[in-house]
Amino acid sequence: MNFPSKLIESAVDELAKLPGIGRKTALRLVLHLLKSEAEETTDLANALTKMRNDITYCQYCHNISDTEVCSICANPLRDQTALCVVSDIRDVIAIENTAQYKGLYHVLGGVISPIEGIGPSDLNITSLIERIPGSEVKEVILAISPTMEGDTTSFYITRKLRELGIKITTIARGVPVGGELEYTDEITLGRSIVERTSYNKL
Amino acid sequence: MNFPSKLIESAVDELAKLPGIGRKTALRLVLHLLKSEAEETTDLANALTKMRNDITYCQYCHNISDTEVCSICANPLRDQTALCVVSDIRDVIAIENTAQYKGLYHVLGGVISPIEGIGPSDLNITSLIERIPGSEVKEVILAISPTMEGDTTSFYITRKLRELGIKITTIARGVPVGGELEYTDEITLGRSIVERTSYNKL
Repeated sequence: MNFPSKLIESAVDELAKLPGIGRKTALRLVLHLLKSEAEETTDLANALTKMRNDITYCQYCHNISDTEVCSICANPLRDQTALCVVSDIRDVIAIENTAQYKGLYHVLGGVISPIEGIGPSDLNITSLIERIPGSEVKEVILAISPTMEGDTTSFYITRKLRELGIKITTIARGVPVGGELEYTDEITLGRSIVERTSYNKL
Repeated sequence: MNFPSKLIESAVDELAKLPGIGRKTALRLVLHLLKSEAEETTDLANALTKMRNDITYCQYCHNISDTEVCSICANPLRDQTALCVVSDIRDVIAIENTAQYKGLYHVLGGVISPIEGIGPSDLNITSLIERIPGSEVKEVILAISPTMEGDTTSFYITRKLRELGIKITTIARGVPVGGELEYTDEITLGRSIVERTSYNKL
């Protein structure tokens, strides 16, 4: 695609580096910005730059935060006995949005993946093991995606935590709400039957 | 959706103002930028701001340009006798990419749409009529989408240009290349038969 302006071209090039945005979409976004008030572009550019430069990570849970200790870790009303281990910041947002969990978090920053060259030392596992002794944590909930890499990571963490003598749980596997039985894979369906719950618990 | 950081929230809010980008996509883009080098975000923000603030429009054809006269109008090798009228900058890019047209352009900046309150005076029609006398233009090609509004706009321009005594043409309507006859609407198919071309012209 040829552009009549180098300015447009470089804006399109930069936008098209973002995941899931091709050059056609990038051009659409650029032309939208051109039609809108100049202020809108300035606000967008400032918000992105400020976010990227000023963001910090919580020194306890490694979640993104505006302060040294994030709002979850700093909140005394949260259940200090439960610690939910997730691989990504997005998982914290997803679990928080369920409003079903009131404990603390620990963000690993990925999963163990030998193919991508990610080993245990590249993840926030040491800080996880170090924060538990001396804390009130009684239960560690492993909320890691049940993929090959996720399961490896869960297994590794379980082995490391075993000697601390705390309860280790994992999120339930089963048929998703709204899911159809016939389209559920056999492993999920199998687990869902084995780990069936009493009807009045639902 | 609740975010653990106001910085993230405002970046997501700004991105989600763009057309076709929801808050989930915006969050994905923000987290991508967080994982990449800080430089990538700076480059993106700068490219957008610079594009929005420094862009100019060609004083002749109203196409986007880095200079007062765009590279097409300033190019003496372009055919100065043909003038292609389009509604949008995107149309110029699309036609240029076909490499089939070597003449000049005139960007209207929209189409006449009484419902959206866009009248002829909101478009670059006056400058179109004024640029033709004294120029070498012999043919005006109306390349406007064949919608209700587009046809109204073409009709309006045709009436205004009639007294200048130049040739007025419109882009051909027909079955698109790669299109299936059975899925082509009857008006397009009808026109395509009426305006059939000699086989060896293809």
